Amino acid sequence: MKRKIQMGMIGGGPGSMIGAVHRIAARLDGKIDLACGCFSTDPAKSRLTAAELSLPEDRCYEDYLQMLEAEKGRIDCVAIVTPNHQHFPMAMQALNHGLHVICDKPMTLTVDEARQLRGRVRETGLVFCLTHNYTGYPMVKQARAMVRQGRLGEIRKVVVEYPQGWLASAIESSNKQASWRTDPKRAGVSCCMGDIGSHAENLAEYVTGLKIRELCADLHSFVPGRTLDDDGSVLLRFDNGARGVLMASQISVGEENALRIRVYGTQGALEWCQENPETLQYRRNDQPLTVYRRGWAGTLPEAERFCRIPAGHPEGFLEAFANIYSSFADAAAGHADADFPSVDDGLRGMAFIEAVVKSAADDQTKWLPVAEL
Amino acid sequence: MKRKIQMGMIGGGPGSMIGAVHRIAARLDGKIDLACGCFSTDPAKSRLTAAELSLPEDRCYEDYLQMLEAEKGRIDCVAIVTPNHQHFPMAMQALNHGLHVICDKPMTLTVDEARQLRGRVRETGLVFCLTHNYTGYPMVKQARAMVRQGRLGEIRKVVVEYPQGWLASAIESSNKQASWRTDPKRAGVSCCMGDIGSHAENLAEYVTGLKIRELCADLHSFVPGRTLDDDGSVLLRFDNGARGVLMASQISVGEENALRIRVYGTQGALEWCQENPETLQYRRNDQPLTVYRRGWAGTLPEAERFCRIPAGHPEGFLEAFANIYSSFADAAAGHADADFPSVDDGLRGMAFIEAVVKSAADDQTKWLPVAEL
Amino acid sequence: MKRKIQMGMIGGGPGSMIGAVHRIAARLDGKIDLACGCFSTDPAKSRLTAAELSLPEDRCYEDYLQMLEAEKGRIDCVAIVTPNHQHFPMAMQALNHGLHVICDKPMTLTVDEARQLRGRVRETGLVFCLTHNYTGYPMVKQARAMVRQGRLGEIRKVVVEYPQGWLASAIESSNKQASWRTDPKRAGVSCCMGDIGSHAENLAEYVTGLKIRELCADLHSFVPGRTLDDDGSVLLRFDNGARGVLMASQISVGEENALRIRVYGTQGALEWCQENPETLQYRRNDQPLTVYRRGWAGTLPEAERFCRIPAGHPEGFLEAFANIYSSFADAAAGHADADFPSVDDGLRGMAFIEAVVKSAADDQTKWLPVAEL
Amino acid sequence: MKRKIQMGMIGGGPGSMIGAVHRIAARLDGKIDLACGCFSTDPAKSRLTAAELSLPEDRCYEDYLQMLEAEKGRIDCVAIVTPNHQHFPMAMQALNHGLHVICDKPMTLTVDEARQLRGRVRETGLVFCLTHNYTGYPMVKQARAMVRQGRLGEIRKVVVEYPQGWLASAIESSNKQASWRTDPKRAGVSCCMGDIGSHAENLAEYVTGLKIRELCADLHSFVPGRTLDDDGSVLLRFDNGARGVLMASQISVGEENALRIRVYGTQGALEWCQENPETLQYRRNDQPLTVYRRGWAGTLPEAERFCRIPAGHPEGFLEAFANIYSSFADAAAGHADADFPSVDDGLRGMAFIEAVVKSAADDQTKWLPVAEL
Repeated sequence: MKRKIQMGMIGGGPGSMIGAVHRIAARLDGKIDLACGCFSTDPAKSRLTAAELSLPEDRCYEDYLQMLEAEKGRIDCVAIVTPNHQHFPMAMQALNHGLHVICDKPMTLTVDEARQLRGRVRETGLVFCLTHNYTGYPMVKQARAMVRQGRLGEIRKVVVEYPQGWLASAIESSNKQASWRTDPKRAGVSCCMGDIGSHAENLAEYVTGLKIRELCADLHSFVPGRTLDDDGSVLLRFDNGARGVLMASQISVGEENALRIRVYGTQGALEWCQENPETLQYRRNDQPLTVYRRGWAGTLPEAERFCRIPAGHPEGFLEAFANIYSSFADAAAGHADADFPSVDDGLRGMAFIEAVVKSAADDQTKWLPVAEL
Repeated sequence: MKRKIQMGMIGGGPGSMIGAVHRIAARLDGKIDLACGCFSTDPAKSRLTAAELSLPEDRCYEDYLQMLEAEKGRIDCVAIVTPNHQHFPMAMQALNHGLHVICDKPMTLTVDEARQLRGRVRETGLVFCLTHNYTGYPMVKQARAMVRQGRLGEIRKVVVEYPQGWLASAIESSNKQASWRTDPKRAGVSCCMGDIGSHAENLAEYVTGLKIRELCADLHSFVPGRTLDDDGSVLLRFDNGARGVLMASQISVGEENALRIRVYGTQGALEWCQENPETLQYRRNDQPLTVYRRGWAGTLPEAERFCRIPAGHPEGFLEAFANIYSSFADAAAGHADADFPSVDDGLRGMAFIEAVVKSAADDQTKWLPVAEL
Repeated sequence: MKRKIQMGMIGGGPGSMIGAVHRIAARLDGKIDLACGCFSTDPAKSRLTAAELSLPEDRCYEDYLQMLEAEKGRIDCVAIVTPNHQHFPMAMQALNHGLHVICDKPMTLTVDEARQLRGRVRETGLVFCLTHNYTGYPMVKQARAMVRQGRLGEIRKVVVEYPQGWLASAIESSNKQASWRTDPKRAGVSCCMGDIGSHAENLAEYVTGLKIRELCADLHSFVPGRTLDDDGSVLLRFDNGARGVLMASQISVGEENALRIRVYGTQGALEWCQENPETLQYRRNDQPLTVYRRGWAGTLPEAERFCRIPAGHPEGFLEAFANIYSSFADAAAGHADADFPSVDDGLRGMAFIEAVVKSAADDQTKWLPVAEL
Repeated sequence: MKRKIQMGMIGGGPGSMIGAVHRIAARLDGKIDLACGCFSTDPAKSRLTAAELSLPEDRCYEDYLQMLEAEKGRIDCVAIVTPNHQHFPMAMQALNHGLHVICDKPMTLTVDEARQLRGRVRETGLVFCLTHNYTGYPMVKQARAMVRQGRLGEIRKVVVEYPQGWLASAIESSNKQASWRTDPKRAGVSCCMGDIGSHAENLAEYVTGLKIRELCADLHSFVPGRTLDDDGSVLLRFDNGARGVLMASQISVGEENALRIRVYGTQGALEWCQENPETLQYRRNDQPLTVYRRGWAGTLPEAERFCRIPAGHPEGFLEAFANIYSSFADAAAGHADADFPSVDDGLRGMAFIEAVVKSAADDQTKWLPVAEL
């Protein structure tokens, strides 16, 4: 009988969207048991969530440090699903208690914190996973595998965009999700670029295997009274000489969650859209358009291993998220061949966010390097 | 602390696609614990599956009757995920043991069995759910709600189609899924119409609220050596005078799982495709095309209650399947407001299958009634 | 200096949609001059149209026979764009005056007339073209060429549909186009099947190279007060044993002009939709989806010769219609390699319409042959 | 009898793609006669084209100045369809001969030439039309009309992109179209931005009614040996404070002609793609997605007047181009209400191209103004 990974959760109380997502993702493949949680700093709220989750009362905590102490030897890992500013201290503490960590993004508030966290992960040898969940989609893995196979030739151009519309008006006064994301104390130096721009950056580097070397950014805060950016566009130059554009926006009215990437090489090009995630378009000048569909003929092993059901039976956001959890659970169980975003991705993301914010604030310097790490 | 529904599973051993689907669906919302199982008539295989599922050995059975006896008082329900011919006896036994039942479709092999099963369900007052999972999609529920609101006017025309290509060649010699579906002993009187045509029929009646009154069918078995139908088309006449066409095919090469319905009324029309399930198109002559998206503005409460995550974060097949399980769990827990396919839907499906097969065999009679039940 | 074909037009006066379409199509490639016309039986209206078209007054006629006489030796051909009931007498007279004919569909009111017309065309050796314009699309020609190349294997299933919504209410009282189409005296035995069902039939036989051998039809007139059909569905059996479904509807609310065909063979399948005419989808079980785009890599010579501009510069309905005219002009100028719908297609269409109407009227007989001709 | 506008053509000999397009566009609506031409500087080639076009020999010229002299009083206008460097002198000469001018873009080689040309147009009072043909699409006009109606609120973000793939390799050695476009002497200071970036700029300013105030550009020449840019991305700031991105590329392998614009305002957003030109998507946060279709309900009069055929009968590139010609012909015939790109658009385009090229060459200055004109 296979032993399930025992997990504690920090954050994810009533009204948390991402907490519920993490729990479904953890549950979906039956590799992980949610064993305990500190869901809210408000004890009543924490207990309410625990009860709904059929957790016994004595495994519901008011304080995450208390939980880390009390659950020693009983849990293998923690999931951190709080606002951004708490990721760093909580992750450090969890590592210090010998626990594997799966943490929401962005990883920390600063590059400096990110470097410290990476150091601690390396020292402990524990598993650290950052939920850049969009790389969990099988057709994103297909895209990366095709790039690696040389099906695109040398990459010349990358266009990655992430338009949303939900912050087009000042909903932060009444919407919990909006409230902390637009608050510099809890979100950090950026709203839009930190929250979703970093997903776009991670997706671009994951698929292409390239690194953004320098960038030129324009950020703006359109909604009156908002101090952090709610829209931004960035010119990119990659380490191989490829050029690119990254756009992220939360004021693109009417857009849901339209993360999209296009990669053009000398021989072929790929396009993937998160809202239609089962499809990967492959374009060439000398062949008709080829459309790969998850699970259908042409699916590569790198993608196939993350498919649960046959082609035409749509898998979506939760399954992609569960792929991250599943790989994390495998790694926590000692399996070598895991494929999930690491602490290095997290540090990379923080370097990107800082470079973008700095570039946007500087109307004189055109090109700004993304810090070598 | 909320008590979870305790479930046993019959079928779903190594190589079963639908067994894995049922387990994920049961797991996804955290309302159900898979507590025991008789996964295969081969004890080794059953144990293998149990071990993979982290079930203790003493809750793994070689014989489903033995399980029903041994688990008395410990489980609330069973999931039946075997080939068609076993649905009826197993469901009857489970009911006789006082258990709620969630069962794959088609419900039985014959209308007569279906009538008996309905009688037993009514006598016992137990919950019986048939996994016509496609009605679990939020945008299918949105479609039904819009029809009920009169947004289409009087319905005139229904086109429902379910093309697949996977049985275009004689793969039954080596493919387990294909093997029993093309075998009259295990599948019943029909392959294509029983397996997927019945989904199309269920979807059409669910969305429109109409009943097929009479039909005219053409079935065919294209692959040499196959005795059951692998393709069929049916002209439909509904009880309100609406006309329609139902197509189901497993030899439509290159098609994945392209269930699609279009409903045209006097005032408006709806279109929904399972491969793009987050979208519902609403057409009118005097307005521009309106496209409803799951979770976005315009989503009705009947659909909203089955959404887990915001618009633009694709939910898919497994979430729709989980919606059926979630409603079943609610009903098993005594909640009144459940929305899932019932034993009546199952009986209706068997009447449809029998009428189609009879019509197809009769080259003289044009219109054949679907039996009043 | 290349001589242009000189053409007269019968019909197409003020308010005629199809007359304007024919004129644009004739004009587009610069092979044809509209030299004279009898645009309306109302002399004032005829003159009005002539003036708008920059035609001299003395080449505008009140009576088509008068025009045929007066223009002898000056024109090469006539275009007939009147309501259906006039096609036959006008085409016969034009042939009798030694003129090539390009005529709107359906060709005649009856199979008998169609047979007579075919006889006359054969006797005269003149060019007769029927504007089944949808076969003028390059990607339809691509589809036919791929079928002929064996890229689909043996054809098993054909689904062709033509939904429109414009006749969903009784607009015939005020709309000129609707008025004659719903009038048995001018439209013939069918409205929907004659007007658009015949396009679907022609498209199916053109692409597949197969003939419909027998059929089983259900026609209906949904709008109160209407005597001819406004909706219909037909089960098809082809001469090679393939099965199919043909649907045509003018009460499919919200649909524009959604002619669509899907052809499934043993090895591959094709799908083409008129509203997205530059794209042809090619599906196989063992390869990813291939999407041919007009003018891009993979376009076959049979399609290429009907392309004017590069891929990605959309050609549409008028260009497809002009392809028919261009081929007709080439044939009229004596070129051998023309590709356009002939008098045989017209006769075939009439046989189809008559069989459908007869089948629909007969609730006893299931399968009705399409007359051998 | 309506008099047709008499037109001469300069350029457009054998192998010219755009010459053929102009001729079809001029022909399509029957308002213009191509009366004479100087199709090539090679007399034999010019005669060949004239013969194919059924033009009499004495109206075919070897020299455009000779044509302008000889045709005095016989023609009303000229179409200039040569490589870029000849637009300016030819247009000036045509104006000097009292002729209206319709000219391909970009208008000139420099801003200075563009200013001179604008001056001459103003002095003569003649009609000058620049074929920024993409604004001829009805749904582009619909977009502009919706912006003007305030349906988007205040505009915040504009994303316009124009990816093509045809210049991804060094085809200029053998392809005539590629040859002059990549040659600084004939194309001017830019290949990609001049050829297609200027279309994108024109489209963005046409639809939004805004002006680009400043920009920050990155241009690159990817193909070895090429001196002019074949790819570029530009950050935009508009005069109302809106931000934007403009991308143009000719090395985006596999892309056909995918011009696309998205405009986001405070209240709503629009999206239009040239490869699917009959559709305009309108997004809002508080309503479901609305999809306008050319000719269907919701089409505004500003678009309706440029529709020839009903919705669902696709109009495309040639019809949009013909809309420019039709408006030009109306203006040349003295009608006031024309809607076509003017000499001001041409000057604006040159200012944009110069600013982009200057910005790209300057790695220090981040924001560069687009010259006030």
